[in-house]
Amino acid sequence: MKICRRETFNAAHRLFKPEWSDEKNLAVFGKCSYPNYHGHNYALEVWIEGAINPETGFIMDLKLLKDIIHAEILERFDHKNLNLDCPEFNGIIPTTENISVVIWDLLRSKISTQFNIEVVIAETTKNKVSYSGNN
Amino acid sequence: MKICRRETFNAAHRLFKPEWSDEKNLAVFGKCSYPNYHGHNYALEVWIEGAINPETGFIMDLKLLKDIIHAEILERFDHKNLNLDCPEFNGIIPTTENISVVIWDLLRSKISTQFNIEVVIAETTKNKVSYSGNN
Amino acid sequence: MKICRRETFNAAHRLFKPEWSDEKNLAVFGKCSYPNYHGHNYALEVWIEGAINPETGFIMDLKLLKDIIHAEILERFDHKNLNLDCPEFNGIIPTTENISVVIWDLLRSKISTQFNIEVVIAETTKNKVSYSGNN
Amino acid sequence: MKICRRETFNAAHRLFKPEWSDEKNLAVFGKCSYPNYHGHNYALEVWIEGAINPETGFIMDLKLLKDIIHAEILERFDHKNLNLDCPEFNGIIPTTENISVVIWDLLRSKISTQFNIEVVIAETTKNKVSYSGNN
Amino acid sequence: MKICRRETFNAAHRLFKPEWSDEKNLAVFGKCSYPNYHGHNYALEVWIEGAINPETGFIMDLKLLKDIIHAEILERFDHKNLNLDCPEFNGIIPTTENISVVIWDLLRSKISTQFNIEVVIAETTKNKVSYSGNN
Amino acid sequence: MKICRRETFNAAHRLFKPEWSDEKNLAVFGKCSYPNYHGHNYALEVWIEGAINPETGFIMDLKLLKDIIHAEILERFDHKNLNLDCPEFNGIIPTTENISVVIWDLLRSKISTQFNIEVVIAETTKNKVSYSGNN
Repeated sequence: MKICRRETFNAAHRLFKPEWSDEKNLAVFGKCSYPNYHGHNYALEVWIEGAINPETGFIMDLKLLKDIIHAEILERFDHKNLNLDCPEFNGIIPTTENISVVIWDLLRSKISTQFNIEVVIAETTKNKVSYSGNN
Repeated sequence: MKICRRETFNAAHRLFKPEWSDEKNLAVFGKCSYPNYHGHNYALEVWIEGAINPETGFIMDLKLLKDIIHAEILERFDHKNLNLDCPEFNGIIPTTENISVVIWDLLRSKISTQFNIEVVIAETTKNKVSYSGNN
Repeated sequence: MKICRRETFNAAHRLFKPEWSDEKNLAVFGKCSYPNYHGHNYALEVWIEGAINPETGFIMDLKLLKDIIHAEILERFDHKNLNLDCPEFNGIIPTTENISVVIWDLLRSKISTQFNIEVVIAETTKNKVSYSGNN
Repeated sequence: MKICRRETFNAAHRLFKPEWSDEKNLAVFGKCSYPNYHGHNYALEVWIEGAINPETGFIMDLKLLKDIIHAEILERFDHKNLNLDCPEFNGIIPTTENISVVIWDLLRSKISTQFNIEVVIAETTKNKVSYSGNN
Repeated sequence: MKICRRETFNAAHRLFKPEWSDEKNLAVFGKCSYPNYHGHNYALEVWIEGAINPETGFIMDLKLLKDIIHAEILERFDHKNLNLDCPEFNGIIPTTENISVVIWDLLRSKISTQFNIEVVIAETTKNKVSYSGNN
Repeated sequence: MKICRRETFNAAHRLFKPEWSDEKNLAVFGKCSYPNYHGHNYALEVWIEGAINPETGFIMDLKLLKDIIHAEILERFDHKNLNLDCPEFNGIIPTTENISVVIWDLLRSKISTQFNIEVVIAETTKNKVSYSGNN
């Protein structure tokens, strides 16, 4: 059984690899490499897999999960520039794939290992990533 | 291969454990324990896993699946108070987790075992549960 | 120009007129008159019409509008039973139409009259009401 | 890890088996067998499972995936009659199940086998199919 | 005050003017003129403007409005080919604009003139039309 | 009668008034004033009011409207930083209100005055602005 909490955050980013020329960045990343950043309303789903606690009827209190997501993820990334403001992305291109790994790792360290975690991030309504760890 | 039918129902409920004091219920369940109930538009997805029937091109006729969901689930729970009106929740706190188990069991008894069943329930657009049996 | 803030609340209600017999209530209100209440995720849109403040580029700070909606509407109605818990509905059947009038009146008393107000409430994704005052 | 690209196409179809009488087609397929076709806005999600390319931070460039979907799927089926215009459905009833197999096969032949593919098609907001190959 | 009921129907159509050559049809209507039809999930919103009935708290019983929409609109157009099956479109190109006029006229003849009517039709999530009569 | 075309663009921005101190900017604009920008998936609806052209059954060809929106709006603002990249916002704080005025003015200069224009922009699913000119 799995439960899911959905939250959103708004951030700026740019896909850019400093080892490459501007031309190569543009060739690989297209408009996403434009120098002054653009942004998204990221929709984050966190799925927690575990067994029902017979005391409460919950796998995990979704209020607790919401609080963890706010403290660990939204406080860090909401209304931020992922490239400039967030040391979690030092040396890491903030693709949706890499964002999902960073978020999964942050949540993994705060959630009991009796629970499996899946992170689903929608960058737009057309582009999504799902990550369950151990890539 | 899996097919999915989505239906909705509107119900009232309250998270409350009679063995606990009102204070403990409030501490654990928060606003969800308020005494006079609140409610939700529950969105129910039923996923059926099986092979395509070469006669029809269907795994299962979605019209049939719709009819089963209406007869077994919506007739029981739509416009009802899960705590007061529904014997299926006698002694069971109507968390979304427990609702998914009750619905899965009801469907399992009506759908051929050649098909696997997954039930996904969204209590709100932020809170969801998925259950595939054998928790 | 108009701005809109969208919030949601979850409440139980029942359509029931005490002057009528149970039979007449059932005939007029159908399943919505069932005695033990049912509930909805109400989606509330508050539209504010006014001119842009050249100082801020805002008609009204949406953070302020959000705070007013939380204090005046969500604190009153979220996770409540509109019939039993909410004196605003004493003698008023909590149809979506009447809910929109109650909410509009509550907001009107807290928002400067330089702004026109429209309230849009979705009871489900199929049923909506829009109210702009002076019905 | 999985990424997803969502695209839509609009097509007409009819569920009809020429070996059967009109009566039997109507009995089995209902309104979907009406002789002059009806249609849908099909929403197609293509999920690609693979590892992050450390050079780019991508599993697969979603721009490339979009281009493949447009060239292989939308060019074939958008604004078409699946029964009359599309040889891919010769002898195949265009149920959502069969559409998902046809699309999966078309994509499988164009996408490197280092990636697993899942196709999810929503015929309406109530009816969906998911197919991952090897049915 | 206005209330809204939302329903959907699935239909095939083609934009084609018989007085024009195929070339001109293609130049004006593009893919929408393809000869064998395509189709859509049409989402129909019917807005009714009126005063609250103090007896019921309703402008109009949404159950009644739903029944009118089903009897007058869905029975006629759901799972149909608008060009071939529907005499309402004899000599009328089934653009979303014209569909909204046909639907508005059908509803106007069945709904008391104490109520104003607005019809909103979404052909896709990107294309919509709103019509309030007297065009 | 009105038709609507919906498009989206992704941009970075910051609410900041250079005449004010950082403290005052933070007090008025909150997180939206953070120095390194954040971003949104802006959803833009353009409504065109006019009469049906009896030749085509269109108010305006939505393909033409789409092309105008792409050429005039998306080319300018998609994947851009509204503060740094877009001279249209020189001296203008890019609030959603001001964005709607800029977009309305750009469209007004390209669309025949026989048509009225309304621009609706959603910055998030919770915040929207509607502008019809002549504020």
